[in-house]
Amino acid sequence: MPAMADETLFQLLHTQVVAAAYGAGRGSGDEGLRAGLTVLEGMGFRVGQGLAERLPQGALAFREELDTIKFLCRDLWGAVFGKQTDNLRTNHQGTYILQDNNFPFLTQMAWGQQYLEEAPKFLAFTCGLLRGTLSSLGIESSVTASVTSLPACKFQVVIQKA
Amino acid sequence: MPAMADETLFQLLHTQVVAAAYGAGRGSGDEGLRAGLTVLEGMGFRVGQGLAERLPQGALAFREELDTIKFLCRDLWGAVFGKQTDNLRTNHQGTYILQDNNFPFLTQMAWGQQYLEEAPKFLAFTCGLLRGTLSSLGIESSVTASVTSLPACKFQVVIQKA
Repeated sequence: MPAMADETLFQLLHTQVVAAAYGAGRGSGDEGLRAGLTVLEGMGFRVGQGLAERLPQGALAFREELDTIKFLCRDLWGAVFGKQTDNLRTNHQGTYILQDNNFPFLTQMAWGQQYLEEAPKFLAFTCGLLRGTLSSLGIESSVTASVTSLPACKFQVVIQKA
Repeated sequence: MPAMADETLFQLLHTQVVAAAYGAGRGSGDEGLRAGLTVLEGMGFRVGQGLAERLPQGALAFREELDTIKFLCRDLWGAVFGKQTDNLRTNHQGTYILQDNNFPFLTQMAWGQQYLEEAPKFLAFTCGLLRGTLSSLGIESSVTASVTSLPACKFQVVIQKA
């Protein structure tokens, strides 16, 4: 099926998932917005777990925490978005910033800054995806996202030390 | 990312979508089941529209209705499930039966016949997907699905004549 890439299929479904999380009277007001974000983050978490569980045994015997994060930037991003993240920074104390200058879920909605307040809805799933993948790799974390200028965004991963 | 096929990603997200449609107290009882099916069918419809709109212009100038249906069996199934349907039958009066002997969304849940009543939840999205794709190709239809023996299923497409 030409021009019908699998990323497209996934992205189209993701768009519908976001719409459903905020449809039918749900997701209005601050409380509704937070409820929708929690649902989306949870779905991302479980998809991330599912992806990680399908990895070949042994492929993920990373020695260093940084190697695991690089795996997310390169392989997870590649599988989900068909590219790598544009930048990775760390304070070497368990905080990592993954930057994507042209985040696919935001590209679809990046017609103008007036939609900036809508952006969190399109980032919550991916926050969960990162957290779920890391969790299945034995690393507990919290993941948040921020947008300064559409369609660029940053995901901040903070590793929870045991 | 080895063994992390895009179909897997899509299927994992679909599983979460089904779970969300029936989670949080929604989707219990006959009325809830129907409401969930309507939501899933609608999401499938819009994803199908989105896929069809991304096809190259001119690629879909099918002369015959049957050619359009064959396109679904071969190209749409290929893009979404990584294979073709196993069988296509028609009464040559606008009714088509697409059979998949090992439907991926059912394979995941096909541990026993006791789950047969759960099957419609895993078929509704794809009914919508077929209907939405056809709609964007200029063909209005109704699509239903049935299961006789997991994980095989049949999708019945009835073309609505103008």
